[in-house]
Amino acid sequence: MKAIALLGAPKDQWPTDLTALLKQAGQNGEFLIGVDRGSILLRELDLKPDLAVGDFDSLKPQELSQIEQTVADIRYSVPEKDLTDTELMIRYAFEDYGAEFLTLFGSTGGRLDHFMNNLLMVLKPEFSAYTEKIAIVDQQNEIQFYRPGTYTVKKLPGYKYFGVINLTPVQNLNISGAKYHLTGYNSPIPVSFGSNEFLPASETFNLACDQGVLAVIQSKDLDRYQNI
Amino acid sequence: MKAIALLGAPKDQWPTDLTALLKQAGQNGEFLIGVDRGSILLRELDLKPDLAVGDFDSLKPQELSQIEQTVADIRYSVPEKDLTDTELMIRYAFEDYGAEFLTLFGSTGGRLDHFMNNLLMVLKPEFSAYTEKIAIVDQQNEIQFYRPGTYTVKKLPGYKYFGVINLTPVQNLNISGAKYHLTGYNSPIPVSFGSNEFLPASETFNLACDQGVLAVIQSKDLDRYQNI
Repeated sequence: MKAIALLGAPKDQWPTDLTALLKQAGQNGEFLIGVDRGSILLRELDLKPDLAVGDFDSLKPQELSQIEQTVADIRYSVPEKDLTDTELMIRYAFEDYGAEFLTLFGSTGGRLDHFMNNLLMVLKPEFSAYTEKIAIVDQQNEIQFYRPGTYTVKKLPGYKYFGVINLTPVQNLNISGAKYHLTGYNSPIPVSFGSNEFLPASETFNLACDQGVLAVIQSKDLDRYQNI
Repeated sequence: MKAIALLGAPKDQWPTDLTALLKQAGQNGEFLIGVDRGSILLRELDLKPDLAVGDFDSLKPQELSQIEQTVADIRYSVPEKDLTDTELMIRYAFEDYGAEFLTLFGSTGGRLDHFMNNLLMVLKPEFSAYTEKIAIVDQQNEIQFYRPGTYTVKKLPGYKYFGVINLTPVQNLNISGAKYHLTGYNSPIPVSFGSNEFLPASETFNLACDQGVLAVIQSKDLDRYQNI
């Protein structure tokens, strides 16, 4: 089962077709999750979350009431907890509902302390089983994560550029079959190799490392004026 | 001399008072830098960059012509180079112009491979002298960086929350005098401690580590509905 979670970051970073995409996902039987304010944002799109997670302290009473009347499984989180609402949600999605893959929307833009929590949570040992089963998506970016191994990374529809970041110390990082290559790269600190490109005739590039966790960000410009 | 650079990420993440802030900075004799499309964005605000850096390949001919007629120092970068335009700009600002502190606007939102380049460039050994002299600012966030040592971090006007991220392996990380404490924390991988808060009666918190580079993100909600 695929799962989709909507978090509460500002809508301005949503993919422009998010509403259609979520409706289609619902019709396909994918599992819809609202994280805190994301729950009411789903309701505003006339979608019913299968699961809602949060402390909901930012919701108006009538909004919380609407969630409580329509969502079958509501998990109330306790503020000042060790895990963020998003981390709790990941546990529920994979452990309680057996999700095979989880896509996060509404997790970029807005407060960057939230974004960095969302980006780096995949590094936590307790989430290591889910690192490669999570994607972060917004209107210009799709982020996926790779543990040590050899991969053929597919170009996602509509994307042109990509960046590879070793989020942790890395050994023997290799990028090939792309505009810029990297061979046998080692680093004790994170480095971002952005603005790489798929080759014109290719729909993939090759990625490998012996140690470390990699983020691959596929990205696109919204128009020529952002091509910088 | 303080320096301000405008990069070319989408305007929607700019601080709402950026135009007034830049005009005031210009009047105060601060050094204004446009990075690639940021140069023409400064011209559109009727501001004259003291320095423009980029390959300018996204500019229309008349836009480039306008830059060439008004900016005294233009540094043309070569695409496919080792350093990004922003990294080149940092060198010029500190080494050629003796900047004491550099604030980056227009470096968040948009393409996240660009943002991650901008966030992690301070870790590169060749920029280690500038790590603590660079700030990344947008409408909800201000990011600064700290090398090993003991610091009293001041609350910036208008901010409520903060996150601390060890961007590298860290030893003996301590956070005190804030809502959530951390004592003697060690980690071989980056961890984001977001959603911390200044104490109501305090305008500072205490930060220290023995090894590693820390990012401190001060952040705020735009309105109560983003308080999640």
